[in-house]
Amino acid sequence: RVEAALAENRPEEARGLLANLSATGQASILEQVSEAERDKLVGILKGDLDPEALTELDEEVLEDVLDQLDSKEIAAAARELEADDAATILEDLSEDERQEVLAEIPAAERADIERALAYPEDTAGRLMQRSLVKVADSWTVGQVIDYCREATDLPDDVYDIFVVDESGRLRGSVPLGRMLRTKRPVPIFDIVDPDIPSLPATADQAEVAHVFRDKNLVSCPVVDEDGRLQGVIMVDDVVDVIDEEAEEDLLKMGGVGSDDMHADTVTTARLRAPWLLVNVATALVASFVISRFEDTIEKIVILAALMPIVASMGGNAGIQTVTVTVRALAMGELTAANAMRFIAKEAVVGSLNGLLFAFLLAVGVIVVFHDWRLGGVIAGAMVCNLMAAALAGSLIPLGLQKFGVDPAVSSTVFLTMVTDVTGFLTFLGLATIFLL
Amino acid sequence: RVEAALAENRPEEARGLLANLSATGQASILEQVSEAERDKLVGILKGDLDPEALTELDEEVLEDVLDQLDSKEIAAAARELEADDAATILEDLSEDERQEVLAEIPAAERADIERALAYPEDTAGRLMQRSLVKVADSWTVGQVIDYCREATDLPDDVYDIFVVDESGRLRGSVPLGRMLRTKRPVPIFDIVDPDIPSLPATADQAEVAHVFRDKNLVSCPVVDEDGRLQGVIMVDDVVDVIDEEAEEDLLKMGGVGSDDMHADTVTTARLRAPWLLVNVATALVASFVISRFEDTIEKIVILAALMPIVASMGGNAGIQTVTVTVRALAMGELTAANAMRFIAKEAVVGSLNGLLFAFLLAVGVIVVFHDWRLGGVIAGAMVCNLMAAALAGSLIPLGLQKFGVDPAVSSTVFLTMVTDVTGFLTFLGLATIFLL
Ligand SMILES: [Mg+2]
Ligand SMILES: [Mg+2]
Ligand SMILES: [Mg+2]
Ligand SMILES: [Mg+2]
Ligand SMILES: [Mg+2]
Ligand SMILES: [Mg+2]
Ligand SMILES: [Mg+2]
Ligand SMILES: [Mg+2]
Ligand SMILES: [Mg+2]
Ligand SMILES: [Mg+2]
Ligand SMILES: [Mg+2]
Ligand SMILES: [Mg+2]
Ligand SMILES: [Mg+2]
Repeated sequence: RVEAALAENRPEEARGLLANLSATGQASILEQVSEAERDKLVGILKGDLDPEALTELDEEVLEDVLDQLDSKEIAAAARELEADDAATILEDLSEDERQEVLAEIPAAERADIERALAYPEDTAGRLMQRSLVKVADSWTVGQVIDYCREATDLPDDVYDIFVVDESGRLRGSVPLGRMLRTKRPVPIFDIVDPDIPSLPATADQAEVAHVFRDKNLVSCPVVDEDGRLQGVIMVDDVVDVIDEEAEEDLLKMGGVGSDDMHADTVTTARLRAPWLLVNVATALVASFVISRFEDTIEKIVILAALMPIVASMGGNAGIQTVTVTVRALAMGELTAANAMRFIAKEAVVGSLNGLLFAFLLAVGVIVVFHDWRLGGVIAGAMVCNLMAAALAGSLIPLGLQKFGVDPAVSSTVFLTMVTDVTGFLTFLGLATIFLL
Repeated sequence: RVEAALAENRPEEARGLLANLSATGQASILEQVSEAERDKLVGILKGDLDPEALTELDEEVLEDVLDQLDSKEIAAAARELEADDAATILEDLSEDERQEVLAEIPAAERADIERALAYPEDTAGRLMQRSLVKVADSWTVGQVIDYCREATDLPDDVYDIFVVDESGRLRGSVPLGRMLRTKRPVPIFDIVDPDIPSLPATADQAEVAHVFRDKNLVSCPVVDEDGRLQGVIMVDDVVDVIDEEAEEDLLKMGGVGSDDMHADTVTTARLRAPWLLVNVATALVASFVISRFEDTIEKIVILAALMPIVASMGGNAGIQTVTVTVRALAMGELTAANAMRFIAKEAVVGSLNGLLFAFLLAVGVIVVFHDWRLGGVIAGAMVCNLMAAALAGSLIPLGLQKFGVDPAVSSTVFLTMVTDVTGFLTFLGLATIFLL
């Protein structure tokens, strides 16, 4: 393997192994080796590094690789890429470095990259590529075919031909396959699809993904405020966006930021600490609730052993609800139209499972401790806490979304605070009332 | 809105509203209304229901809609769809109903659907469509263009032309755009990409998604064991697979099965109960550990209030590690090559945050309770538990994966059992040794 060749100081062998790989292969090796090995590998590869590989790297790894290249080398790589991909690579450089790299790129290509960089990250304008086939609505199929034959710089991945009017406004598109089957004298406007979806350059990438998903698109034109064609977004870049958004939600739900895997150890620890700090705060609230019942616990110590059961069941049932709610919100399946029905359903589900586990635990407690009052107390607390979990689990994400906060990132903290407090309060409270 | 029209018994208005919508629009309305409204809507729509809408529905909703249609109506819808989409719709019917529907479909189309149904769910064979442009490797570009012009049944979404030898084995593909730019007398074989990716019909859908992601594909040919071209998978269906897999992992991590949102209330409660039952079992283990320290708690009741802090910090830190591990495994970024380095990093991250929060809590406890020994005990337990969390959080998913169990589904139960037991055991154990 590459690592062995590196360890035994056979750089030529490592270069040979990597140079033959596809861009994705190179990227995946660069992501899997350690930082020191990565620096060494990049030093060895230089010219054999496929520029496409850079676009496949996670942000942290990319920064690492770019550190090892000088601005001439980065500029050479950027020139081989589409402007949108080049922009992605340059955006993480410092302002100074970026200017240095851009200075090495000829003016025409530089302008394209700068135009892409002018759009905010994660918008349609940044995702789109500018190379596309654009023809006037007055042409015939024959003219379009001749134009395609003569333009030598057209990319292989053209699937649709876009038709615009004199002022550059998008009039529709023609799939390449359909054009191939049409006779040359037919006006292109006769076979155009006029009602194709298009995206404003300012659209957020999550919205872009929704449009591709809903309309089953392979490419989608991007237009400015006046409807003028600016570029086209290709589905392979949207697949990356979908992966990115799904990863973001999963990691946020788990209390981790993105790029966690490839960040160095200290950075990772520092990025995770705030979430743990928030959790300390909520744990302290629960702890304070318990401390109010010290007298009760002192008299009936077994309560201390049983109370985590009630709290953790509430937490788990609530996380089930939060997970479904966050996903349904992300996929646009949960809207104002069905929110009430959704909450009501969760409340009933919570009550049903609350009753089930209240019964099971009450029976268990009565069998073990021969104390039917203790069984009743744990049963009552369980039902209350699973209902609280269902309500909090659906209302918290919905509320956060309403106030413009990402429901994936903070729902679980608030939820576990609710279920811990409710669990300890109802269990110890009921015990104080009925058992003392 | 549609619901109002339904409620006020104006079926014609509801039909008018829905009939004008796209397939996705119809599907999203059908998913958002309640079950009773859905049944009514389907009854009103019948012929105006776009068959494509059926392919966009979640499984539970689809079953509901199909219940309202007779086999003739389902057969009519299936005939308008690609064989792969028709198969998806028919597979959830009972064996009897499926035979009834298939009987209504003419033999040629039936054979296509039956062939698709013969492949197991979630494989490349099921995802692929059979309509594609397949040409012999001996043809010229002109012959291929003429063939495309004459074949009237070719779909609009053709992007690549597949070249096969006499025995039907795949020799490569030609992007449509490249063919358009090539002169007619050129042999097609001169412009073919011979090294294109292809998938075996038996490949799992997760593997299909990986290939599309890695190679940035728009379509991918599917071949049988002998390399003969069977069909082609289109990227829009892969986007659905990617969404499905991401949703599955997110929901599993949250302890919920898929199709949870649209299942009816009792089914949802029943599907979530097993996870909660597993959680009761692990909570009982933690509870048992605490009960072993009843004497200690009786003497120092404040321990009962503080012990959940240690346990819950371990749980949260562990979930952070589990989340990163599960995602890295799903994306193929965590392999045997970097597993050791990954685990070591997590252990160091756990120690760093363990030390940080040990210090914070010790200071807090000493300030509030003026007891430096209690502060020392909570600090010691915190460090131990966050290290245990890091090790368990990375080793459990890796171990489950190794034994062929989906790491998304069961990692968190085992993890919280480890962190609860370690948290209570170290905190109460250290307290018994040093405070009594
Ligand atoms: Mg990644
Ligand atoms: Mg470095
Ligand atoms: Mg980005
Ligand atoms: Mg779709
Ligand atoms: Mg691109
Ligand atoms: Mg998001
Ligand atoms: Mg869904
Ligand atoms: Mg029904
Ligand atoms: Mg299915
Ligand atoms: Mg499936
Ligand atoms: Mg990609
Ligand atoms: Mg399809
Ligand atoms: Mg999976």
